[in-house]
Amino acid sequence: MPGSIDLAEYLFTRLRQLGLGAVHGVPGDYNLQLIDFVEPSGLTWVGSANELNAGYAADGYARVKGIGAVLTTFGVGELSAINAIAGAYTELAPVVHIVGTPRRESRDSRLLIHHTFNDGDYGRFAKMHAEVTHAQAHLRDPRSSAQQIDEVLQQCLLSSRPVYIDIPLDMVTTPVSRARLDTPIEIPEPEFNPAEDEVVRQIAQRITACRQPVILVDGESKSLGIVDAVQRLASSSGWPTWTAPFGKGLLDETPASFHGVFNGSFHDDATREYIEHADVILNFGPHYSSTNSSHYTAIPRVDATIAFTTLGVKIAKDTFRDVSSKRILERVLQEVDFAKIQITSAHESLSRDSLLDIQAEDSPNQITQDRVWRYLGKIVRSGDILMGETGTAGYGCRSIPLPPRTIFFSPVTWLSIGYMLPAAQGASLAQRELARESKYFGIEDARTILFIGDGSFQMTAQELATIIKHKLDVTIFLINNDGYTIERCIHGRKQVYNDISFWRYLLAPEFFGADKDTYTASAKTWGELQDAINHPSFVERKGLKMVEVCLGRDDSPPGLLSHLMKTQIDRDGM
Amino acid sequence: MPGSIDLAEYLFTRLRQLGLGAVHGVPGDYNLQLIDFVEPSGLTWVGSANELNAGYAADGYARVKGIGAVLTTFGVGELSAINAIAGAYTELAPVVHIVGTPRRESRDSRLLIHHTFNDGDYGRFAKMHAEVTHAQAHLRDPRSSAQQIDEVLQQCLLSSRPVYIDIPLDMVTTPVSRARLDTPIEIPEPEFNPAEDEVVRQIAQRITACRQPVILVDGESKSLGIVDAVQRLASSSGWPTWTAPFGKGLLDETPASFHGVFNGSFHDDATREYIEHADVILNFGPHYSSTNSSHYTAIPRVDATIAFTTLGVKIAKDTFRDVSSKRILERVLQEVDFAKIQITSAHESLSRDSLLDIQAEDSPNQITQDRVWRYLGKIVRSGDILMGETGTAGYGCRSIPLPPRTIFFSPVTWLSIGYMLPAAQGASLAQRELARESKYFGIEDARTILFIGDGSFQMTAQELATIIKHKLDVTIFLINNDGYTIERCIHGRKQVYNDISFWRYLLAPEFFGADKDTYTASAKTWGELQDAINHPSFVERKGLKMVEVCLGRDDSPPGLLSHLMKTQIDRDGM
Repeated sequence: MPGSIDLAEYLFTRLRQLGLGAVHGVPGDYNLQLIDFVEPSGLTWVGSANELNAGYAADGYARVKGIGAVLTTFGVGELSAINAIAGAYTELAPVVHIVGTPRRESRDSRLLIHHTFNDGDYGRFAKMHAEVTHAQAHLRDPRSSAQQIDEVLQQCLLSSRPVYIDIPLDMVTTPVSRARLDTPIEIPEPEFNPAEDEVVRQIAQRITACRQPVILVDGESKSLGIVDAVQRLASSSGWPTWTAPFGKGLLDETPASFHGVFNGSFHDDATREYIEHADVILNFGPHYSSTNSSHYTAIPRVDATIAFTTLGVKIAKDTFRDVSSKRILERVLQEVDFAKIQITSAHESLSRDSLLDIQAEDSPNQITQDRVWRYLGKIVRSGDILMGETGTAGYGCRSIPLPPRTIFFSPVTWLSIGYMLPAAQGASLAQRELARESKYFGIEDARTILFIGDGSFQMTAQELATIIKHKLDVTIFLINNDGYTIERCIHGRKQVYNDISFWRYLLAPEFFGADKDTYTASAKTWGELQDAINHPSFVERKGLKMVEVCLGRDDSPPGLLSHLMKTQIDRDGM
Repeated sequence: MPGSIDLAEYLFTRLRQLGLGAVHGVPGDYNLQLIDFVEPSGLTWVGSANELNAGYAADGYARVKGIGAVLTTFGVGELSAINAIAGAYTELAPVVHIVGTPRRESRDSRLLIHHTFNDGDYGRFAKMHAEVTHAQAHLRDPRSSAQQIDEVLQQCLLSSRPVYIDIPLDMVTTPVSRARLDTPIEIPEPEFNPAEDEVVRQIAQRITACRQPVILVDGESKSLGIVDAVQRLASSSGWPTWTAPFGKGLLDETPASFHGVFNGSFHDDATREYIEHADVILNFGPHYSSTNSSHYTAIPRVDATIAFTTLGVKIAKDTFRDVSSKRILERVLQEVDFAKIQITSAHESLSRDSLLDIQAEDSPNQITQDRVWRYLGKIVRSGDILMGETGTAGYGCRSIPLPPRTIFFSPVTWLSIGYMLPAAQGASLAQRELARESKYFGIEDARTILFIGDGSFQMTAQELATIIKHKLDVTIFLINNDGYTIERCIHGRKQVYNDISFWRYLLAPEFFGADKDTYTASAKTWGELQDAINHPSFVERKGLKMVEVCLGRDDSPPGLLSHLMKTQIDRDGM
């Protein structure tokens, strides 16, 4: 039919319009025909070893590129991926989960087809996904299918959360009108809310009168679309700025006014007192989970806080819903002259160079968590993606001061170990795509650097094969500390259940198909670590590199984890 | 308190009473205290690399030992395992999914704790599990917790399906009365149903009058508890017997009256006609999914069928619900004198020896799927567990005639690739436990033999590390045919999405921690395969052995898959 397009091509064209360059997934017999349309629609197909990995990869991709997609098969495939979808929901990664489902007549006749419960009930997987996605489209009728797709994709952008689209096998080539494609899917401008003027007035008044202001940036700033505005505010005001773990990497960390992650009760007294006595705390994109707020101790004092959130703006105890955080912030930036505000107390931080000035001079000694993170932080360059997996790695990486234009992945709230290696695949792929589209800060040789514990690595290790297959530029520091050290910090320090099986980690690249001369190194001492990262192959080569860093079983980064571990040791004895 | 016991110990003691010897799982910070009780309760803790693997392993264990358990942490852990729980639900494996959840006060106060959606809603994971479990116990009140545990465990046995138990962290050591432990949890005897006499009368009448009877055994016979009775019936009657894939391995396959798997429209004409013209078909434990019934063509003719099902007994079109299949069958065995029934037509099968008489004489030639399964079938001994993963392996293994007392795992309905390697871990562990308890057919040196495709292996490969760690006696034939051949049979034979990444498979044992001299071999030709399985280390050693068998990309076993592949090739050309 002239002017018509196959439904599958319609979907993938819409996704490409939104900036998607690759679809992650695993083939299965209800989605093969769908996958036929991926590459002809101008997208790359990235097959993962399993669906959980594919879901994690799509999440990592989405956090870098603004949208990601994972394509699975009915039942078995979609359920394997569901934990990844739940994580994307929790941490606001806009992932589209596309599921190829059986033909409509099979469903209608309750056929006892494979990948079902053998009871004729085809609806349960979608019900389960409704618990972990923001919106769902169950395509059944060609007259509404294109519109349903558009609606859920818009909801994906609006919420920055996963959505679910199920396409029956017999609808893959259903013709739909091509005309809709001419109207782009966009996030609608916020409705005008009469409360806006009052909100701006109150904020301006508080800001103008303040003497000890604090900027506290958090990760939901990204889905609010206010990162640039917050950067302008931080730069023009020069006010002391901290970040929550989730917000790390969003702002330029090099100015003297930037002080890194605020660790609440685990921070030094001077910092805690400074923030406790602040008269205005501008809290952007707050996400107050236990793990993102140093167990709630980093949540700023309510009476001083002006919070720009996904639900609206909150000034002290008053919440103004349905006002746009983004528009309010832009108006504040226009209406307030930050240069005129005299603040009484500055709070100077150490420079990145001095923070990173950690030498490996005591070379025969074992590597220790108190210094290894900032020691290795030296290798991070502008444009790199730095990822610290849940565990000591994730906590440790938070202490690394970043160069500008660095993207940072940290444990936030979902904390599903095993996430970060597949996410590195997706993030690195997105990074390369952006560089090839000349949309990546003008940087072409950026890398993805992953710090990951041994227990986490074991969860999803096979995703290394996808990294190798797609020749991604990923550097992995495998923290070998003989088990789940983060669990040892919490409970069961000496229990066997916190041990893991013994792997010969450095065989991984060869096993998973890399060239046999892929750079690997193992470091037990500071000297070996120094040699590993100074080796010409490490410095000069592209592609996969892997360094095993052996650390003590009970060693953990300063702060919360060390505190917990110390409590354990004090109770049990060494 | 005298007479009281910690709730966690109560639960694990109950599971031990039901025959459980090991708990599979992964530690996480809401279940560590629960795991503390596993080994003191007399159970082995088996930590898997991830929760999906642990769930699959518990399923494999349950199918051998009659009950299995997987212990995960709230949110991230339980969702990673949920696909395994769904498979156990579909294929009737009695798995207890135990989840360690946050303290009750966290839930009640909607605390924004990690491993939640950061919205205070703690209930969504359990709702998702309600879709894939037969019964659920949410322990909140010490006064009913022990009773709730007993009830769901009884439902697990009754339904032979997974159940879900969530235990808040603050209830692990809640004291409950020890007294209940003296009353065993049992499957209650069926209620007497007045229809029983009539059902027995009708069956006896039909059987006594029959001239061309057929026995067709299927996998739900196991959860019905009728396998022994069906064996007695098959032995005493000598009637021609076939099995569905799910039923394979339940009956002694050596008598001449046993004819193997009935493949419906893919079977030879003589067999199809024999079964089509049968006047009585005794169908035990039917499970009529597409994949277990040769796409519905192996479902027996309704008017001749007497089906013993989990829902009751069905005679032709009449279903008698709430009569006990087990009791009816026992009464039929008592009341009918099978020796007196003259059947007109016997149907002799080839002996196991003649079926297995396949030589590797054309040794320089490539190994082919038409003969490799029965060629390798020779190595199977009484007591072995033989497993064929979904894919060409699963279809191929169905053609192997089994010695007595062999346990067989086949693709049935759920068909989640990646299942079978972790299931081999669980099954092998259960096998060893039973042998050590002298409950395993009097056999002590039985092995678990797994046939698995490369694509499936990649899904869950890390479970090999658990097999190695626990020194299980597992032999793996890794079918290397360069991708998802079963998908190629269905669609996209030459599409890149059916390719997989390149792995050096035989490095797997060393990478995953096995002794460096673990036996591995690779076979591209019949000669190499013969050498591999005749090698003294293969024949004599215990523990892990791994043989890579290289097969053609488009080669598949005779029957359905070859038929589908041929259709593809006819359409596309070579």
